[in-house]
Amino acid sequence: MLEAASSLMRSRDTIDVSLSDIAQTAKVNAALVKYYFGNKRGLVLALLERDLTNAVTQLRDLVDMDLRPTLKMKYHLSALIKMYFYRPYLNRLLTAVMRDGNEPAAREIALSYCAPIIEAYQRMIEDGVATGEFKYVDAKFLYFTIIGACDQIFSARYVLRYVHGIEEIDDDLRRAYARQVIDLIMGGLVVDDSTLRE
Amino acid sequence: MLEAASSLMRSRDTIDVSLSDIAQTAKVNAALVKYYFGNKRGLVLALLERDLTNAVTQLRDLVDMDLRPTLKMKYHLSALIKMYFYRPYLNRLLTAVMRDGNEPAAREIALSYCAPIIEAYQRMIEDGVATGEFKYVDAKFLYFTIIGACDQIFSARYVLRYVHGIEEIDDDLRRAYARQVIDLIMGGLVVDDSTLRE
Repeated sequence: MLEAASSLMRSRDTIDVSLSDIAQTAKVNAALVKYYFGNKRGLVLALLERDLTNAVTQLRDLVDMDLRPTLKMKYHLSALIKMYFYRPYLNRLLTAVMRDGNEPAAREIALSYCAPIIEAYQRMIEDGVATGEFKYVDAKFLYFTIIGACDQIFSARYVLRYVHGIEEIDDDLRRAYARQVIDLIMGGLVVDDSTLRE
Repeated sequence: MLEAASSLMRSRDTIDVSLSDIAQTAKVNAALVKYYFGNKRGLVLALLERDLTNAVTQLRDLVDMDLRPTLKMKYHLSALIKMYFYRPYLNRLLTAVMRDGNEPAAREIALSYCAPIIEAYQRMIEDGVATGEFKYVDAKFLYFTIIGACDQIFSARYVLRYVHGIEEIDDDLRRAYARQVIDLIMGGLVVDDSTLRE
């Protein structure tokens, strides 16, 4: 059922899909969807949990690895763009659920899925500054810059369609975009560009 | 009435405001809003026209000015962040109207408000490469990176609220964010960092 919701949001390019559409796609009874998730919000929370818990764990593991901060950040940017490529609705869903939720619920979501990323950035920045690889930047600002830069092409794909005649973002386009975003952000982050080529 | 719509979208942090709420805020009869704009979509199109036509003209004028490409791009990034600061709903509204519209209408919007920005980027990149200031980058990709990086802090302000305890983005925060985004993007774009300090 979560996979049905995910693929509907992806193919229709909107987070506004109904429980009955999800039931139909998953080929189950709508009552079953209601039984498992209660309502749309319950399903959305379960989908965020499925999609983001792994991502947060992987980022934490990456930060703990014995690698140069420059490499860690490049891996992370590449993984983030891949995540939005497969789940282009994810950032919109996360924002919508924080906006619509009551305060304690919204806070819990922010602390579960956003705070760990910002903490990981803080650690990577500190490590990078310590090794002389990175300029010092503000981690809370870097979060918005990176999320926005990596997500926007998947959130506003009508621009690709109507301005450039590109209907679908395929794997080649995703890789080309990742290369440019990584070059641009890492170029702004590193003290010396030549460390990027090592 | 457009100002009422704009301030409602800003204060409520959502683009889902009703015509009757707008009429109430503007202190006019709801029938008058209907008379002028027909429906919600008509009002949204008029709001985009008001907010974006000037921005597109100013960017074209900037590109025509006799300034170094590095300076032009810095001015543009600063102006873009200021625009989203005053109108944090703008990018979401633009995307929503392209998503919901029929194809010819969506195409016209993309060609009116997105294509001129991408063309301006293309010219700035070519000029910057010609003067030896910029690395060559793809303008269509740069559009998404820049829009996302500049817009995201205003589109996902719940992260600031719940992770950092920051309720409002004030002028100081806006300026600090602009500084970091400009440093990061320009650092990735320029061939030699020392040109940024000239």
